[in-house]
Amino acid sequence: MRDARVTLVTLGVSDLARSAGFYEALGWTRTNAGNDKVVFVQGEGIVLSLFGVDDLAEDAGLSAEPLPRFRGIALAINLPSVAETDRLFARAVEAGADPVKRPETVFWGGYSGYFADPDGHLWELAHNPFFPLDADGRIDLTPPSEEPA
Amino acid sequence: MRDARVTLVTLGVSDLARSAGFYEALGWTRTNAGNDKVVFVQGEGIVLSLFGVDDLAEDAGLSAEPLPRFRGIALAINLPSVAETDRLFARAVEAGADPVKRPETVFWGGYSGYFADPDGHLWELAHNPFFPLDADGRIDLTPPSEEPA
Repeated sequence: MRDARVTLVTLGVSDLARSAGFYEALGWTRTNAGNDKVVFVQGEGIVLSLFGVDDLAEDAGLSAEPLPRFRGIALAINLPSVAETDRLFARAVEAGADPVKRPETVFWGGYSGYFADPDGHLWELAHNPFFPLDADGRIDLTPPSEEPA
Repeated sequence: MRDARVTLVTLGVSDLARSAGFYEALGWTRTNAGNDKVVFVQGEGIVLSLFGVDDLAEDAGLSAEPLPRFRGIALAINLPSVAETDRLFARAVEAGADPVKRPETVFWGGYSGYFADPDGHLWELAHNPFFPLDADGRIDLTPPSEEPA
């Protein structure tokens, strides 16, 4: 399973300093790796690369068009309780996030909300009682666990 | 730093079975958690949630418009060598990925390529000699490491 991983996520941003400040305010650690074009912030076992959105498009050889609000993808942080979900959501909004959908109890039996970062990147914060977090705060759905409804 | 993490990434998809097959072919493990609306595939310390793209938009309370090819975000897998990068890129293309940019030596001294999954989600595969991988294959840029050029 060594190929199945995400070591880094590159977020195309319009203002490096603003984005670095936002993620620092959410608990990410700014690192010295980087330069005037890219800032790397370290999380638990994963890095966010904050990179000019036009630079990212160019790096991939794609054309940078205006981005829609919904981009078909959401990064998620699973939290151990409803209270922790509310706490981190409030922390994000305090840091300047757009509160796209405030956390609420959802049909599948969990508790979930969405915010967007300063460039519109969508994050979900969720407490899912069917997905226990391991000692490192990670989800492990294998071996077979109880199925959500 | 406990808030600074990504436990799960939700990818909006148009065909659950196709996407599940694609990620299984890339080494992710399909789990029993899920139903006819969502498939969870397990990776190393992170889960991909494959979810109907319209369902994801609705879940976030956003409107699902047609997605551009470039969406301002890339998931990345850092690999320990050029050869490993080529190997996994070939595995992805074999599984049906769109080879957006075949891996090549890049200006910052690394080796990088991009592919898109069946729904256009962008992945970068990279060998970055300045970002050593730890025993678990993760990047740790703190404490201070050597800066890339």
